[in-house]
Formats: sequence, structure tokens, C-alpha cells
Amino acid sequence: MDLSINLEEYKMAFLRNAWYVAALASEVGPVELFHRKILNTSVLIYRKQNGEAVAMRDRCPHRFAPLSMGKRDGDDVICHYHALRFDCTGKCTHNPHGNGHIPKAAQVETYPLVEKYGFLWIWMGEQAADLDLLPDYSPLDDGPPSGIGYTHMHMKANYQLIIDNVMDLSHIDHVHGEAISTRGQLSPIVPEVKETERSVFARWDWKQTPPIFVLSHFLPKPTEEARHFFTVEWMPPANIQLSVGGAQGDTPFEEGVGAYDLHTTTPETETTTHYFFATRRNHMVDDEDFNQMKLKAMRDAFELEDGPIIRADEEEMEGQEFFDLNPVLMSNDIASVKVRRVLARLMEAERQQAQKQQTPAQAQPLAAAG
Amino acid sequence: MDLSINLEEYKMAFLRNAWYVAALASEVGPVELFHRKILNTSVLIYRKQNGEAVAMRDRCPHRFAPLSMGKRDGDDVICHYHALRFDCTGKCTHNPHGNGHIPKAAQVETYPLVEKYGFLWIWMGEQAADLDLLPDYSPLDDGPPSGIGYTHMHMKANYQLIIDNVMDLSHIDHVHGEAISTRGQLSPIVPEVKETERSVFARWDWKQTPPIFVLSHFLPKPTEEARHFFTVEWMPPANIQLSVGGAQGDTPFEEGVGAYDLHTTTPETETTTHYFFATRRNHMVDDEDFNQMKLKAMRDAFELEDGPIIRADEEEMEGQEFFDLNPVLMSNDIASVKVRRVLARLMEAERQQAQKQQTPAQAQPLAAAG
Amino acid sequence: MDLSINLEEYKMAFLRNAWYVAALASEVGPVELFHRKILNTSVLIYRKQNGEAVAMRDRCPHRFAPLSMGKRDGDDVICHYHALRFDCTGKCTHNPHGNGHIPKAAQVETYPLVEKYGFLWIWMGEQAADLDLLPDYSPLDDGPPSGIGYTHMHMKANYQLIIDNVMDLSHIDHVHGEAISTRGQLSPIVPEVKETERSVFARWDWKQTPPIFVLSHFLPKPTEEARHFFTVEWMPPANIQLSVGGAQGDTPFEEGVGAYDLHTTTPETETTTHYFFATRRNHMVDDEDFNQMKLKAMRDAFELEDGPIIRADEEEMEGQEFFDLNPVLMSNDIASVKVRRVLARLMEAERQQAQKQQTPAQAQPLAAAG
Repeated sequence: MDLSINLEEYKMAFLRNAWYVAALASEVGPVELFHRKILNTSVLIYRKQNGEAVAMRDRCPHRFAPLSMGKRDGDDVICHYHALRFDCTGKCTHNPHGNGHIPKAAQVETYPLVEKYGFLWIWMGEQAADLDLLPDYSPLDDGPPSGIGYTHMHMKANYQLIIDNVMDLSHIDHVHGEAISTRGQLSPIVPEVKETERSVFARWDWKQTPPIFVLSHFLPKPTEEARHFFTVEWMPPANIQLSVGGAQGDTPFEEGVGAYDLHTTTPETETTTHYFFATRRNHMVDDEDFNQMKLKAMRDAFELEDGPIIRADEEEMEGQEFFDLNPVLMSNDIASVKVRRVLARLMEAERQQAQKQQTPAQAQPLAAAG
Repeated sequence: MDLSINLEEYKMAFLRNAWYVAALASEVGPVELFHRKILNTSVLIYRKQNGEAVAMRDRCPHRFAPLSMGKRDGDDVICHYHALRFDCTGKCTHNPHGNGHIPKAAQVETYPLVEKYGFLWIWMGEQAADLDLLPDYSPLDDGPPSGIGYTHMHMKANYQLIIDNVMDLSHIDHVHGEAISTRGQLSPIVPEVKETERSVFARWDWKQTPPIFVLSHFLPKPTEEARHFFTVEWMPPANIQLSVGGAQGDTPFEEGVGAYDLHTTTPETETTTHYFFATRRNHMVDDEDFNQMKLKAMRDAFELEDGPIIRADEEEMEGQEFFDLNPVLMSNDIASVKVRRVLARLMEAERQQAQKQQTPAQAQPLAAAG
Repeated sequence: MDLSINLEEYKMAFLRNAWYVAALASEVGPVELFHRKILNTSVLIYRKQNGEAVAMRDRCPHRFAPLSMGKRDGDDVICHYHALRFDCTGKCTHNPHGNGHIPKAAQVETYPLVEKYGFLWIWMGEQAADLDLLPDYSPLDDGPPSGIGYTHMHMKANYQLIIDNVMDLSHIDHVHGEAISTRGQLSPIVPEVKETERSVFARWDWKQTPPIFVLSHFLPKPTEEARHFFTVEWMPPANIQLSVGGAQGDTPFEEGVGAYDLHTTTPETETTTHYFFATRRNHMVDDEDFNQMKLKAMRDAFELEDGPIIRADEEEMEGQEFFDLNPVLMSNDIASVKVRRVLARLMEAERQQAQKQQTPAQAQPLAAAG
């Protein structure tokens, strides 16, 4: 396995040493060879017979056929073209040709894969996978399956445009319909923003009468004033926890109605993105029909309302960098701009780290010459 | 508004300081937000409540969403993404976010737009729009609406290939059908050609029996000999007046039958073009059915007869410059080659002018060093 | 005709001074103007009135319209755009414009074309066409028309991936179905390989019970053991003779059953290929229904079984050179790797030859300066 660092990859605007969602856990069945392109690379994902999911490069090192075109045999995968067999560590275990000698280079690159919170998380960076970098999204696990919806969408846009969209909720009154309208109250709010080395958080608080439609029916007095909040919290590389809540009278938000979502984007290429999300709620949690209806409404909001604008932005930007286009920035951009800056800093640090590892020998004489 | 000159644009084979047809006047309704890409730039066109059409860049300076996805409010346009409002001068007049402060940079570039002769003419160059550079096409206005037809076609070819086609009418016997056949008489004629600093004119005169089919029925003796002429006159950037006439006996052409067309091409990109034309005639001018029939015949001639050849030329040229391919030139190419040369001279002058404005400071020391 | 050498073409991974199949002889009817893109160039092929096929660049030297859009007149072709007429040597024989003067440059590049073995072979290189470089494929001619099938397929892959596929028959047990299964016996064999300056040959010999399905019914004892062989022999640029045979008892292969195929690939572009093949057999040679069935089975095997893998390889290779991707090489790759090396050596020799012819003048002073 070639472990040298490909500096070309560091010119891409992706953080590499991070956990990305590779797939919904439900997308990968017990026997199938699942293919997905992630960070410009074809990835094969499948479940071992014990159910554990594994990931490797979806490319045979012999003639470059996708292994996902091949077949399973136990926990191994057999290339469709010339029947080289690989185990789930990417090691070639059988060569049916000639004397059966297995060349040392017959090794497929594998990627750490973790199943958690209903997603399969993949680590494609060169540094050792670090489970501490997978944040705690345990609210997703807190409740019955009929109280949570998962989805995957494919978008023709750079993933950062989607992060922008979710981190700046001021758009919802302008882009979306009645269901999540704040009746113009959200835009004037300058959200409370908190930033750390590896996160950006924003919170909006407001009151409205009647309450926001998606929650109103589950509040004690559906037509009377409610207090509301939205929070979003981004963590690298591209994961946003989004909470919405409503409460009336003296009821604290903790006892009110609300939902907790995880929005994550996984770059397929520089201009196409896998958009995953999960939405967990604390009301009607046992109603599977309601669950499906709500999930469909959220998908539609994204695909039919946000999606066309984001794709149009991508086209108008014509491949240029966001800040190079001198965007007009306003108070509602604070959180999304902070995310872009933290992410750029992390990517730059990663690039410098990769460069340093690449050229220790060459760096030495230059320093000594000083 | 950034008024600095983008030198990249001067590498494109477009004249920029010139009037292009942006749309047929009839294409832009009273309330719609009309989008068209012109000279590689997305343009929004709409009519104010008083009917006056205005044009601006179809891109919000905030997040680059196309303004044409937004909505009208009076003479203003409201961006669909975050509801920034712009007046028809491109000035941001309302920001619903935070304290409502409007950043100075929240300004959309606008383009002078003139409605004349049934077209909307746009000026996208950096120099001041000069109405004197819009030639007199008043014959288009001379007659009832049922005596003129307008159309817009989209072509997958560079605009200069379309100009070549119209400036060299020798092709009509070979490409088109009976309706405008000269029965081989046009090709042997070396047209009379006149050239000025900003125009190229060509005229063909011939006789034929029976007269050219499109005019024959409106001549006194439809089966007997007629005198005919074609004239074409190109003016920058891409406008060609084309006249055809027929007369019999001693009747002067002024009293004969004929038509006056304006053919104009507006580059969408280097390889795609908006082709507009208008055709005014002096016969059957009150017959709207005939008008529609004639317009359809002209559209069909272009789309089904010229169009496929021009697209094939574009493909065979594989992005190379026309003269770089060492074309064989013949007598019938005189007018179209002169147009290419005048246009190249005007584009080069414009490029040099832009370069001069860009680099006065750097130019000085170099000169002084001599 | 411009005979100077375009060095750009030598950067392409095509051998130029070689015979490629331009078309099946049956593809070009007696009157049609047949278009095909070969080695990145549009080619016109048509048959003279005496049936002889000729080839020339499918591009009028005047305005670059494809001549195949035009019409035939005797053995000449007339451009559709301005009716320039060219004879079958590419010479302009009529210009209907002005005084009819024919510019010296009005000459279309022609290509030597030879009809042999049921194919039209084209030579597009700058050196003189050399018939000695067209190998002897006369077994194709040996038998009735109902004993041979021809086909043309278009593939979205570089032609060398298709050569790889045919030169390494070890894939057949893994990719194809029952009809040509050796039941796993082929892969363990290290084929006998012979290489010359301009050819690579490989042979596999084995026994199986029952015999290989496509031949078993034509052997004396269809369910009993048979001896089998496969041979492939590549010659430049991209032609592979493939033979398969079976015999039982003491019967020599010459008296057994078998088939002789010619597989040839003609690059359309660097990433698309025309794949031609012919298959001649020594059994059921008078049965036209069987002939059609067998041809369909072979087409399906390629299009539905090999094709998807080869296209997937092309995509996974992302435009990179095969050896640059450090492929794992095994015993079954011997023949295909040898072909890649011989071909690379021939292409490099051709490139150096072209460079030498281009710059004799410049090379001299440099040498003298030493």
C-alpha cells in the first residue's frame, strides 16, 4: 500500500483527516457491494458476515476495475475482471493465475469506517483515524426508530455552499413556505455566535403568534404566542447539529416541543456533494406515518426550495473561490463566514503538515544554508 | 460597483463597447424577471411599471443567487435567497437582516438598455454608452405590425460563423430550397463591396426568369423576367441589414417589391450565440397570416438549412481561430472576410485601450528607462 | 495540401504510420458519403462508381463544412455549403463562384484506403503508405460468407484497454458465461509467449471435459474430454488474430473444430474507440442462421460483459497513463504488457522520426556549437 502523501490532494478544498458520513447505515445491506465516490475517490463499502461495515478503495490494483462490480465470498471480495480476491483488510488472499503468487503490491487501500448514530463514518486522511474527532451526536439515538428520519440527497454544488445555507437560517422566511415561517422575525435577529478552535455555534431566540407551524400543533395552545429558538453548531469537517424548539408560558424549552437534526455534507467532488441528514423529534415519536411525512417535507424543502438556489449559486460562481468574488457580507453571514474561516485554517494547517512530512530531506540543507 | 477593467475579458473575441440585441422587445413581458446570458455574463432584464426596460447583472452581490429567481416589488427586485432588495439602478434599498444596515458594496452592476426598432439593445462595455453607435434601422418601423416578423434563435456556434453566412449570400443556391433560389445566377457574381472604418457593404445585381419565388407572386408578371438585387451591410458589433428586391420593365427598385431585414447576433459564450432577426416587407403588409407564414419559413431556412452546416463548421474548427486554419478564400468571401478584419481591428483597438487604462503607472517607468 | 508535420499529433498515444480499420466493407454503401472520426480526425469515405472506396478529410478547406453533408456527382463530391466540387484525389475541380478560379490551396487531404479481408483499411500517417505493413489475414477469406461474421462497436474507452482485454484471455472464466467457460483451467496456465519487433503472440493449451461449450457440439463426442488451445497474435497498430480450437483423441487440431477471429481497434479519440471484429469458423459454415446467432453472441459478450468493465477501468484511470498508475502485474499480464511496450517503442520511434524531419536546420548549429 502506497502511503506516500499526494500533495495534489491538498490543493483540493477538502479537510482530509476528519470523519465524513460515507453512507446512511441503512443504505448498505448485508450482502451488497456498495459504491460511493467520496473526496474524488471511488469507495467500496460492504458489511462482513458479522454485520460490521468496512470500506476500501473501489479499484482493483491490477487493472483498476471497480471491486463493487465483483462478488462477495464470505468476508472477501472477488474482482470481476480477473478474480483476484481481497479480504476486508484489503490484502490479496488469492490469485488464480499462473502459480498463484501474490505480488506484494496487490493490496487495496482501506479506510477506517465507524457505524454510529445511524451513519457510516469514514476517515480518508493520511493521519491515524482519531475517534475523538467524531463528535457526540447521541441525541439521535435517544428515542424509538419511528421518531427519527434519515435521508441522503445528491447535490450539484460545492459542499460549503450547503454549509452556508444551514449556518445562516435567516433564509428560511424567504426561501421556504408556511411550515417553518417565522413571519419575518428571524432576519432582524443578530444571532448569538460562539466560536472555538473547532466549532461555530449560533442561536436565534424569538417569540411568535401563532407558533411556528411545524411545532404549533404539539404545543398546549396552538394559536397563542410561543417562545422559540434555533441553534446550529458546526464541527469539522461538515457536520451541523441543528435544534429547533418551542415552549409556552413558563415551560422551559427542555419541556417544550422540538427537534434535533444532524446535517452533514460529504464532498463527492469539488462541485458535487452528498448531503445527509437525520432529524429526531420529541413529539409524535411513535407515529411512523407522521415520521415519513415529516421526512418527506424536509427532503422537499431542501430539494425543491434550497437546492435550486444553491445550484444556481454554484453556476454563477463559475468555479471561483467564494471570498475571491468579494461577496457582500451582512450580519446574517456571521456564522457561515466563521465556518469558512475555521475550515480554511484547518485545511491550511493540514496542507502545511503534509508538506512538512513530504520534504524533511530537502528542507534540511536549505535551513543549514542560512 | 467595481469599475476596474477585467483584462481577461479582452482576450475574448467580443467587442465590448457596442450595442448588442439583448432580447426582442416582445420577449420581456410587463412583470417578468427575464434572464439571458450575454457575453458570458448572466443578465436580468425587466420592465419598470412605466414599461421602460432595464438591465443588470443577474447575480446578487451577497451570495450570488440569480436575481431572476426572485420577485418584483414595484420597480424593485427582491433576491429569493435572503430578500435583499435592489432598485432598478442596482442600488440595494432594503436589507431585512440585523439592524438593516446596507453595505456600500451591495450594488448590482447595471447596463444601459435601449428599446428601439422592436429590440432591446444592451451596452456591456466599460466606456460610456454611446447612442451614436446604434445605427439607424428605421425601415423596421416603417409599416404596420403585420408587415414585420421578429424572431430569436439559439445557436451552438461562434457568432462570427453566422455573420459569415449572412455576408456571403452566394450560399443560398446551394443550401436553401426553391423559395429563394436564383437558379445558380448568384454564385458567379462578384458582389460590389464597399468598406468604411465601421461597416462593410455588398451588393449583388442579376436578372432571372421566373423571378425569385418569394417575390414573384407580388410582381406584375410573375412568370416573366425580373431584375433583382441583394444588399447586405454589416456594422459593429454584429448587425447586418439585408435587403432584397425585384422589379420588372422600367420600374425602379424603389417601386418594386422587396424586403428589409436586420440580422443580428449576440454572443452568449465563445461557442454559443443568440441569433435575432426582423424582416419587414413592402407587400401583403396587412396580412397577419402571411406574416406568420413568412416568419416561419425564414426561421426554418435558418434552423434546418444554415444551422446544421454552421454547427458542423464550429465542431470541425475545434475551437481554433478561423484564419489560423488557413481557409481557402474565394471571391465570394470578400465581404465576410472584410467584416472579420474590421471587427478584429476594432477588438484589438479596444484591447489596447483597456490595457492603457489599466497600467498607466507601470508604463511610465519603462518609458523613462529608455 | 499542407504536408508539414503536426508535432502535436505525436503527443497523442496513437501510432500514425500504420493501417487501421476505417470501416467494415459492408458499412459503406455504393452511393453514400460515409463519415467516421478516426485518430481525432473527421474522415469521409465513399465508393467510386467502380466500387473502389476512397477516403479523404471530411472537411471542406473553404469554410470547414463536413463534405459528408454534401452530395455525390459521379466520382466527385460537392460541398453542401458553397458547392465546391472535389474529385476523389481531393483536388478541387469546380468553383461556381466569381470567375471560377480554383485556388491552389483548395485541396482536401486524402488517405490511402485498401479494401481487404472484408474491411476498409486506412493509412493516416505522414510517411508513404506501406502495404507490407498490412499483415496477412487471409484465413478470413477462406470459406463462404455464411461462415464469417463482421461487426463494429463503439466503446467509451482508450483502445489499449481493449487490446489488454483480448491479449489476456485469462479473464474469460471470470467475466463471461458458460459458452466459453474453461471451468477455471485457463487462469493457472502461464501462456507460451513469443515476441518480435512488431508482434506479440501467446498460446494456451489445456484439456477439459466436457469440451468448451461453443465447440463441444461439433466434436465427435460432445461430452468427453477434448484438447483445446487459444492463440492471440497482436500486430501494430491494434490488430489481434485470435484462434480457438478443439480436438479429441489423436485428431490433430488442424482436423478439429475451431474459429479464427480478427479483433481490431481504431482510436476515435484518446478516450473512445471503434472496435471491429470478424469471426471465421470451420463448422456449420453454410448455416446463415447459425452465423447470425454466433455473431450476436459474440457482440453481446463484448458489449454486455467485457464492455462495462473496460469502461469502468477507463473512468477509474481518470486519464492517467496505465504504467503511471503502478498496476500490479501478474503472470497473466505478460502478453498484454509486452504489447504495450512494443507499441510504446514504435510510437516513440515515430515521434523521434517526426521531430527529426521537423528540425534539421535548427539541429545543425547546435551540433556544430559543441
